[in-house]
Amino acid sequence: MIRVGVVGATGYAGAELVRIIAGHPDASLTVLTSRQYAGEPFETIYPAMKGLIDLNCEVFDNNSICSKTDVIFLALPHKLPMAFVPDLLKNGKKIIDLSADFRFSDPATYEAVYQLHTSKDLLSQSVYGLSEVFTDQIKNADLVGNPGCYPTSVILPLYPLLKSDLIDVSTIIADSKSGASGAGRSLSLATHICEITESFKAYKVTGHRHKPEMDEILTAAAGKPVDITFIPHLLPMSRGMESTIYAGLKKSVTPDEIHNCLADFYSGCPFVRIYDHGIATDTANVRGTNFCDIGFVLEKDKDRIIMMSVIDNLVKGASGQAVQNMNLMLGMDETVGLKAMPYPI
Amino acid sequence: MIRVGVVGATGYAGAELVRIIAGHPDASLTVLTSRQYAGEPFETIYPAMKGLIDLNCEVFDNNSICSKTDVIFLALPHKLPMAFVPDLLKNGKKIIDLSADFRFSDPATYEAVYQLHTSKDLLSQSVYGLSEVFTDQIKNADLVGNPGCYPTSVILPLYPLLKSDLIDVSTIIADSKSGASGAGRSLSLATHICEITESFKAYKVTGHRHKPEMDEILTAAAGKPVDITFIPHLLPMSRGMESTIYAGLKKSVTPDEIHNCLADFYSGCPFVRIYDHGIATDTANVRGTNFCDIGFVLEKDKDRIIMMSVIDNLVKGASGQAVQNMNLMLGMDETVGLKAMPYPI
Amino acid sequence: MIRVGVVGATGYAGAELVRIIAGHPDASLTVLTSRQYAGEPFETIYPAMKGLIDLNCEVFDNNSICSKTDVIFLALPHKLPMAFVPDLLKNGKKIIDLSADFRFSDPATYEAVYQLHTSKDLLSQSVYGLSEVFTDQIKNADLVGNPGCYPTSVILPLYPLLKSDLIDVSTIIADSKSGASGAGRSLSLATHICEITESFKAYKVTGHRHKPEMDEILTAAAGKPVDITFIPHLLPMSRGMESTIYAGLKKSVTPDEIHNCLADFYSGCPFVRIYDHGIATDTANVRGTNFCDIGFVLEKDKDRIIMMSVIDNLVKGASGQAVQNMNLMLGMDETVGLKAMPYPI
Amino acid sequence: MIRVGVVGATGYAGAELVRIIAGHPDASLTVLTSRQYAGEPFETIYPAMKGLIDLNCEVFDNNSICSKTDVIFLALPHKLPMAFVPDLLKNGKKIIDLSADFRFSDPATYEAVYQLHTSKDLLSQSVYGLSEVFTDQIKNADLVGNPGCYPTSVILPLYPLLKSDLIDVSTIIADSKSGASGAGRSLSLATHICEITESFKAYKVTGHRHKPEMDEILTAAAGKPVDITFIPHLLPMSRGMESTIYAGLKKSVTPDEIHNCLADFYSGCPFVRIYDHGIATDTANVRGTNFCDIGFVLEKDKDRIIMMSVIDNLVKGASGQAVQNMNLMLGMDETVGLKAMPYPI
Repeated sequence: MIRVGVVGATGYAGAELVRIIAGHPDASLTVLTSRQYAGEPFETIYPAMKGLIDLNCEVFDNNSICSKTDVIFLALPHKLPMAFVPDLLKNGKKIIDLSADFRFSDPATYEAVYQLHTSKDLLSQSVYGLSEVFTDQIKNADLVGNPGCYPTSVILPLYPLLKSDLIDVSTIIADSKSGASGAGRSLSLATHICEITESFKAYKVTGHRHKPEMDEILTAAAGKPVDITFIPHLLPMSRGMESTIYAGLKKSVTPDEIHNCLADFYSGCPFVRIYDHGIATDTANVRGTNFCDIGFVLEKDKDRIIMMSVIDNLVKGASGQAVQNMNLMLGMDETVGLKAMPYPI
Repeated sequence: MIRVGVVGATGYAGAELVRIIAGHPDASLTVLTSRQYAGEPFETIYPAMKGLIDLNCEVFDNNSICSKTDVIFLALPHKLPMAFVPDLLKNGKKIIDLSADFRFSDPATYEAVYQLHTSKDLLSQSVYGLSEVFTDQIKNADLVGNPGCYPTSVILPLYPLLKSDLIDVSTIIADSKSGASGAGRSLSLATHICEITESFKAYKVTGHRHKPEMDEILTAAAGKPVDITFIPHLLPMSRGMESTIYAGLKKSVTPDEIHNCLADFYSGCPFVRIYDHGIATDTANVRGTNFCDIGFVLEKDKDRIIMMSVIDNLVKGASGQAVQNMNLMLGMDETVGLKAMPYPI
Repeated sequence: MIRVGVVGATGYAGAELVRIIAGHPDASLTVLTSRQYAGEPFETIYPAMKGLIDLNCEVFDNNSICSKTDVIFLALPHKLPMAFVPDLLKNGKKIIDLSADFRFSDPATYEAVYQLHTSKDLLSQSVYGLSEVFTDQIKNADLVGNPGCYPTSVILPLYPLLKSDLIDVSTIIADSKSGASGAGRSLSLATHICEITESFKAYKVTGHRHKPEMDEILTAAAGKPVDITFIPHLLPMSRGMESTIYAGLKKSVTPDEIHNCLADFYSGCPFVRIYDHGIATDTANVRGTNFCDIGFVLEKDKDRIIMMSVIDNLVKGASGQAVQNMNLMLGMDETVGLKAMPYPI
Repeated sequence: MIRVGVVGATGYAGAELVRIIAGHPDASLTVLTSRQYAGEPFETIYPAMKGLIDLNCEVFDNNSICSKTDVIFLALPHKLPMAFVPDLLKNGKKIIDLSADFRFSDPATYEAVYQLHTSKDLLSQSVYGLSEVFTDQIKNADLVGNPGCYPTSVILPLYPLLKSDLIDVSTIIADSKSGASGAGRSLSLATHICEITESFKAYKVTGHRHKPEMDEILTAAAGKPVDITFIPHLLPMSRGMESTIYAGLKKSVTPDEIHNCLADFYSGCPFVRIYDHGIATDTANVRGTNFCDIGFVLEKDKDRIIMMSVIDNLVKGASGQAVQNMNLMLGMDETVGLKAMPYPI
């Protein structure tokens, strides 16, 4: 049984990790940390778990967590993980960090968006945890920087087409929409039900920090600089993320060619489902699951493609992909613990 | 592997059965019927299931379903099951019927609320499928009449107190609130999002057909006639049901006495969770699960108890309890296939 | 033109007062106060008002507000108003206080639920602002204690029946459900969309501070002590409140007798609409309006009545009734400024 | 008093017309037609209107409606209006048609998307009712084809920039999101609360019939053919529409230049509010109102503009704009009857 610790277990991504690991046949929760709720039983913070999780939250302690775990998930705001990770690695732990701290290969990019990076030397050994794209590197990694939710939803549909050099990279636009759980459990007027119900809006229209993360990976895929246009929006709902992506094609292609390009790239990837041409995706179809569903439509006479992708921002966009990465790092089937059937409604 | 057929697989209760059975380690879906969608792949009706359910819907055919199944769930409107069940039973099938057709022991009660009963002789052998209450009878049954969602949410908290003769039966009031999925997938103005969002209302205030079902079981528990007051309400949400129940106590009791009465009765019942005195339940805590959470508060000086119970109307209120009954009928652990961890949000 | 000040203008009740007064043909907003947003244009706090409200928020200042207003609404948490009101009254202002500070005639009741009352002497001159019940007193008042939302929804249906001595007062139960705007704009996990969407729950089941307020008024109506059972619940929506009220009747009555009792009492009351026997009310029917809709059903053989009432908790439950009271206090038609047609959906 | 008839009064656009006209100081409802509800009081179909609308629904009858009205709104599915309009015009009525029947100047465009047009000769005299753009023509019109909701939300932000030749017309992309009320009151699985809550999806991705309507007007604005990319999406809410529009600029411009271009064009237009550069719009800010709020952001180094516009699809996107057009046609102030203050939440 793999012993698992979740650092920051009471935020939404942390609690979702608790849910998934608690149902994982080969893993067992041994440590849950929370500064805010130290000493309290996890089930009092999340009463849905009454009778199901028999652990108290504790303050993070390096020695304690190292003695009790094999794998550690960090579900903390950025900046904190880079302080904790070096010691955990030295103790031989496998680390999946859900913050931005270990997502970038170039510290300068990180520092331009976040703050000074204090563990720059680890960036070269950390792997970007987009499970379907960097599978082999993840299998060999001790430290994974788990992708942001927006990057996951935008990169997965685009990556195969960029690799196949089908897209004019100067034309890429991603219009993304996220459920409110992406903003986390911290209190904010933006997630007050009276402010968000019957409301839809763009936000951070002058710059969102997930954009450099997308650009870095898409640039690697294209083999040339990519600088997409990205506008995030907030949905009046809890879970779910959709990205509608517009791009000019470098040449005329048929729907079959696009479908094949995607299907070939994601062949053997159980969590990516490719839709037929002209069929729209729906966040409801992936709610609570680790799936990323991808659809597309070609515009006649315009050599423009519109792609749609949907994920559950807390699962494939965060904790589900994190567990998928753990499975890969430990040489297990990537679907273990992630096979719960989706709800029909 | 138990071979399972779901008749009426494309309604919400049917689709929820499909979800649960598809994740059941000892059962396998072999037949899905749907008049409306005959010939279509189930996954095109519920795209969430894309790649997960490899069956087409078919028209109900007695011979075909008998040759391919061991257990049959009927998720049909009342009246249809009583026509199908006799032949299915003769063919040795185990039947769980989610309609009202086999819930009543007295055909007169059924006929007063629904219509003429054409299989009256089977009522004596059918068992009311409230799993925690009629466990032993269910284990020996070939035909189970699965309870309605309102009755499940009202009877579970009251039954132990009535058995212990703690309640003045003339005073029982159940104020129940249901998510809209209880109304099913059929189209109706009442479930149009524009009519129901930001709306809350009572309905069927002059009589709901679930009331006689409650009265029959509560009468048996009390050993004297029970005729409760029951007002159902419609919530602006999809899944979840709460009942707040008011009753006069026959004598002064302490919170501990009530807690013990409930905890003793449901000792060994993994799907019933009893809350401490004064702690309110929340439908969110049981969403997607087979739990029934029960809370209560005593009013000082009034000898009045207020009980709260919450269920997911599609799971413990319908398809989850149906699978729990199947497990019991087949001598398996009642929790098999029903252990998916709840979502924290 | 009546000059109106709103103290605490940026909370939900305050902002709703701003909305209504801004559309009032005989009143004009002259002062908006807000500690949190002092100095900021109101329209930046509520961008819906862009171009419509040309006032900045200011810090409360007794001299300033007295020089610029004729009527002052206090939309503050309890405790603050009792400090401000004495001076405002001395300056000849008409005051409508939306907190609990001036709702009770007996300071002991107030102090048992809230805290020490520092302006006890004013309680005898303040009038409880349930517009339809205390109309004449309100017309002559300088200080009105505007009712709580729950009390408004519970007292309006019960008052006529208690006055007519139709109800056994020991049997009254009010099961009330409120939209989340009743919790105000302050941040709290309870109103986080991810916690409240697809959730329904009771809360404060061991005691809510609106209950003594109801008991005081109902006791006056009945002419004998009333101590109701009251359980509030939280709805997954923004605006709207429903109370389902159960009570034993002292004698058999017909639906017509009940209807007449209600219709007679509320004759000439444009904001109370009485439904026919057996017709359920719906919060959607009063959303955004100052209406209170009342329905009822009689249970055969039980001498029990079930009443339903719906209001918009921010309008008839707070700011709308406050403006209705202002109209009465100033000798105007009570409907002025409150006639906006309801939205069909 | 202007006598007004609403044909198709019980659909959502019709009922919204009823709401607005009932509150219009210079107009009076005299005829409401509905095939489905003929003979029934309007207030029984929309109980929110109880006591407020004293008219029964009637079957459409040309003579009757002509004798009782001065202005007629048609809130019907396309195809029906073109049969009714010729006779109504002959009788001297002013007509505002909310269907697509009289929106196009070229019948071929209409027929390519809808069906055979049987009143082609009237297309030359009908005016496209985008109130702020075709103001003068509307003032002189007897027949107005009221715009679709998507076209209103897309054309208003783009028109001034196209007129000023700032945009490369080959690059225009409109990513639009609509509340479910745009789908109308007819029953459909797409608007079932259980299918739409916690769901977000694109739809009609291979072609929506509002696109040719946009292209025709934008082509006129640009003076050259415009063929935009348009993807509509469905929001899990009732009212509100947002369009995020992406376009390449023909030259570098400053935020001030864009702001001035918009502000100059909409100078004197009380229902268009221009936001400062980088400020996002929100459908909640225009809910229930006739406003169109427009925001924008310029992308450095890319000569790309992103525009955002929000409307209430039932008001500025349908019935509010229709009344605004009536006001213009009758020589009144365009805001009469449309000044209700927005709700803060």
